[in-house]
Amino acid sequence: MTSSVPAQALATPALNTVTLYDTTLRDGAQQEGLSLSVEDKIRIAHHLDQLGIPLIEGGWPGANPKDVQFFWQLKETPLEQAELVAFCSTRRPGRAAADEPLFAPILAAGTRYITTFGKSWDLHVTEGIGTTLAENLAMIADSIAHFRSQQRRVIYDAEHWFDAYQRNPEYALETLVAAAQAGAEWLVLCDTNGGTLPHDVARITAAVMAEAHHLNQVPIGIHTHNDSDTAVANALAAVQAGARMVQGTMNGYGERCGNANLCSVIPNLQLKLGYHCLSEPQLQRLTDTARAVSEVINLAPPEHAPFVGLSAFAHKGGVHVSAVQKNPLTYEHIEPEQVGNSRRIVVSDQAGLSNILAKVATFGIQLDKKDPIAREILSQLKDLEHWGYQFEAAEASFELFVRGCLNQRPQRFELLNFNVHCLTDQPSHVGAWQPQEAGSVAVNAIATLKVAVGGAIRLTVAEGNGPVAALDRALRNALVEFYPAVEQFQLADYKVRILDGASGTGARTRVLIEFASSQGPTVHRWTTVGVSANIIEASYQALADGLEYGLLKTLPQPIHAS
Amino acid sequence: MTSSVPAQALATPALNTVTLYDTTLRDGAQQEGLSLSVEDKIRIAHHLDQLGIPLIEGGWPGANPKDVQFFWQLKETPLEQAELVAFCSTRRPGRAAADEPLFAPILAAGTRYITTFGKSWDLHVTEGIGTTLAENLAMIADSIAHFRSQQRRVIYDAEHWFDAYQRNPEYALETLVAAAQAGAEWLVLCDTNGGTLPHDVARITAAVMAEAHHLNQVPIGIHTHNDSDTAVANALAAVQAGARMVQGTMNGYGERCGNANLCSVIPNLQLKLGYHCLSEPQLQRLTDTARAVSEVINLAPPEHAPFVGLSAFAHKGGVHVSAVQKNPLTYEHIEPEQVGNSRRIVVSDQAGLSNILAKVATFGIQLDKKDPIAREILSQLKDLEHWGYQFEAAEASFELFVRGCLNQRPQRFELLNFNVHCLTDQPSHVGAWQPQEAGSVAVNAIATLKVAVGGAIRLTVAEGNGPVAALDRALRNALVEFYPAVEQFQLADYKVRILDGASGTGARTRVLIEFASSQGPTVHRWTTVGVSANIIEASYQALADGLEYGLLKTLPQPIHAS
Repeated sequence: MTSSVPAQALATPALNTVTLYDTTLRDGAQQEGLSLSVEDKIRIAHHLDQLGIPLIEGGWPGANPKDVQFFWQLKETPLEQAELVAFCSTRRPGRAAADEPLFAPILAAGTRYITTFGKSWDLHVTEGIGTTLAENLAMIADSIAHFRSQQRRVIYDAEHWFDAYQRNPEYALETLVAAAQAGAEWLVLCDTNGGTLPHDVARITAAVMAEAHHLNQVPIGIHTHNDSDTAVANALAAVQAGARMVQGTMNGYGERCGNANLCSVIPNLQLKLGYHCLSEPQLQRLTDTARAVSEVINLAPPEHAPFVGLSAFAHKGGVHVSAVQKNPLTYEHIEPEQVGNSRRIVVSDQAGLSNILAKVATFGIQLDKKDPIAREILSQLKDLEHWGYQFEAAEASFELFVRGCLNQRPQRFELLNFNVHCLTDQPSHVGAWQPQEAGSVAVNAIATLKVAVGGAIRLTVAEGNGPVAALDRALRNALVEFYPAVEQFQLADYKVRILDGASGTGARTRVLIEFASSQGPTVHRWTTVGVSANIIEASYQALADGLEYGLLKTLPQPIHAS
Repeated sequence: MTSSVPAQALATPALNTVTLYDTTLRDGAQQEGLSLSVEDKIRIAHHLDQLGIPLIEGGWPGANPKDVQFFWQLKETPLEQAELVAFCSTRRPGRAAADEPLFAPILAAGTRYITTFGKSWDLHVTEGIGTTLAENLAMIADSIAHFRSQQRRVIYDAEHWFDAYQRNPEYALETLVAAAQAGAEWLVLCDTNGGTLPHDVARITAAVMAEAHHLNQVPIGIHTHNDSDTAVANALAAVQAGARMVQGTMNGYGERCGNANLCSVIPNLQLKLGYHCLSEPQLQRLTDTARAVSEVINLAPPEHAPFVGLSAFAHKGGVHVSAVQKNPLTYEHIEPEQVGNSRRIVVSDQAGLSNILAKVATFGIQLDKKDPIAREILSQLKDLEHWGYQFEAAEASFELFVRGCLNQRPQRFELLNFNVHCLTDQPSHVGAWQPQEAGSVAVNAIATLKVAVGGAIRLTVAEGNGPVAALDRALRNALVEFYPAVEQFQLADYKVRILDGASGTGARTRVLIEFASSQGPTVHRWTTVGVSANIIEASYQALADGLEYGLLKTLPQPIHAS
């Protein structure tokens, strides 16, 4: 390393390393129709942490009350390796940075890293915020210097960079110089409108790299949007021109047409262009992470997505399939396992068996590949998946299913029938958009349920403020006398997905229910699934599985009533 | 024009023209889960013809019985400007082209253009089809020569071109030379696996252009797949390197991760790179065409798609919105009207007053900023959103809400009460994971419902295979006598989101329902929302809003029962 490399650049990793910066929780959450609770954000942050993303932008504390709570609440379950980043604008015109009220909640969020964004485009300065070009430079410099004085590390996002540079390159570069001199550790070139094409991204990034000596050798990042359908290619072009940070989102979520999809950027950089982003085992978590995030967000997993989609390595047609099996690399651009995905042979599937055996082994069940029951499990599994079951996110139901096939599922209770009745106590006036106060909701569902436990039969009734709550209560009322443990299993999450939405209310429904049970400081969590054309029936399946699974782990043998 | 340009190149249009080649009907139809009837294909062909696509690949007659019928049937309603293209492989090894049975149905399809594809990759020749490199060259040359002898114009698709060129550029180029010398009018470089990145596409296309004198100056085309998430960028890179035909599909449909999306390629080429693809009025049909094709295919229109998506020019956030209204081009990369799309102001919890007024204006309602009712609407909206309503995706409910605030919402019907009863006819055995056969589901929900319409009161009952289906039917049964139009409003999609899932089944539920109504060739769609702790109640709200909104647009005044 030569002596001309300044200290700041030394702090950044090796030259072929690209630093990943995820903004799913902030820019991704801008996607139309996407709405994240604080709990959702915390779960996504942990998924990203486990994937190995080093920088996770959590939100803009202060601009959104939820974001303040997110940063606060995450401290109870801290991230293992990732740095959390708070996001905000530079100070407003005509204020001292120390007096900027916007900054109080940012600093209070208590992150080591802060990303602040400023204006690069002279027109946005003079016409948009109505101040002088000099004041804008001061706003950038002051804000960064202020955060530095509070011992924070600062990333500077240069908004509308590419448009700005094409109109007035001199002024645009001055804004970067201001940021670099004030102590920013990264200068991130943002294509905020998403209108720039790869050749211009490459050219302009190279022009910035050529000014590195004026920018204190501060490393460059890239932040792209997909309005031209080239967000991923733009990120790659910038890296090839010298950028060493990529900002993007999981599954490409984001405002308008989305942000650069990290699920595509990462494998392209690492497997094709030879840059280092994640370790090999981390990269193998990519597909699971992409799908888990989509589940938390409650959007369908991206079926046709590159690299991580269910269809990404799906092969149809006999000749093609045998050619793939002979020499996969002539028909697949990467090995699907490198990103944790798998080849799917759409006609006759043999690929799944080893996956299943590996999964079953995690339940402590050893099963031989040649055992006919293994093929039987695979075949039933395909039928269930075809019907709409999905076990990726519902391993508890999968374990019960496998144990059922193997005759290792002792029956704890048997449903004889149930009835659920929903009635409107308070007529709901069409046009009266008055939301009821939380807590004032009248009881409006009643469930009756008959189960057999051993030789005993119990008929119970319960009410709730919805049909599923009533059914849950009625089932527990019936079981508690035999299995007191059921009262400890809490319902932690309940998700509904309509399969094949195009057939309207006649479509099948998939319900996922997450349960939690605390034993001392440890919280066990498990998720179950139910599928039916009737949402109540699907919910019952998932409820019953959840209680049964909890009992399986608590009491290895069923209790027989006297 | 210089005299060195050969006759064939003269037949192609001006140098800055890019010829569009659509393969939605063949390569697009390979998408997993997509299935097209002959009627569907004919409708799509006409949409593409009206858009102005000059070359439409219709299928592989003979390989698929439907495709024979498609070419035959389309003759009854011929295309206005487009050329239909039949697709097939080159002849098989060891046969004369004239004796190749595959070619009979191709020629019988009666198109002026034929696209034939051949192997570029030496390994695919020797290992895949087990013949010699020389025989493969003969297969390419003979097949093209045979079609030329039958007065057909021939496009040659070089399969796996980029992988082939990277392994054995000499042989790969020999295959192109064989095709050019045999009379192909276009040589199309195909990235069949979709694994090539833009810089390699650019480099390799430029290398082919440099061999133009060996290729009889035959013009070059590009065919890309999206496995690396760079299909569009790859097509652009090839054009910038000299290619003058782009093959792709509408909405990027295609096997695995799809083909190059023509809806993105076209505006990028024409509006940003200065190439000519379509006339300006044709380009303005792009959004309608993209949506019409998705309707025919019965897939949801691509909401977040660049250029043509519903969200492509959607703006959130107060400051941003007022800036867009001041100077759109600083926040939009093109004018949405250039591709027939439009700007949308999205209502969300970040909305300020200017968003709301802009949105309300699109309903034809003028509201002054200073009118106290405007502030009242904003304040109620915040309450509703805090409660869990979300209007971004439910503009129909938002319009009803605004009209309600303004006393412009005539009451069409009033709910007095409803009851829904779900019962298990067939006891569901825990542990019996036997999915029911579609269609064999027993009726298991009954809804009764009482509404007032004008002075009349109706009590109805209906059954369905789920509580929401039963409730929907009961409501329509009650209304149809007064408003026959309700039977035309179809339920197109039903989405459920549990808000704040962490409180389990007691949490609030948000239901979104999409309705569709056809009037001639135009399909109107609208979406409504309901929120309640009880999923049935939330569904009722969205159902009732949906019918009311449909009636509002159909019948401006309510009908009063006698």
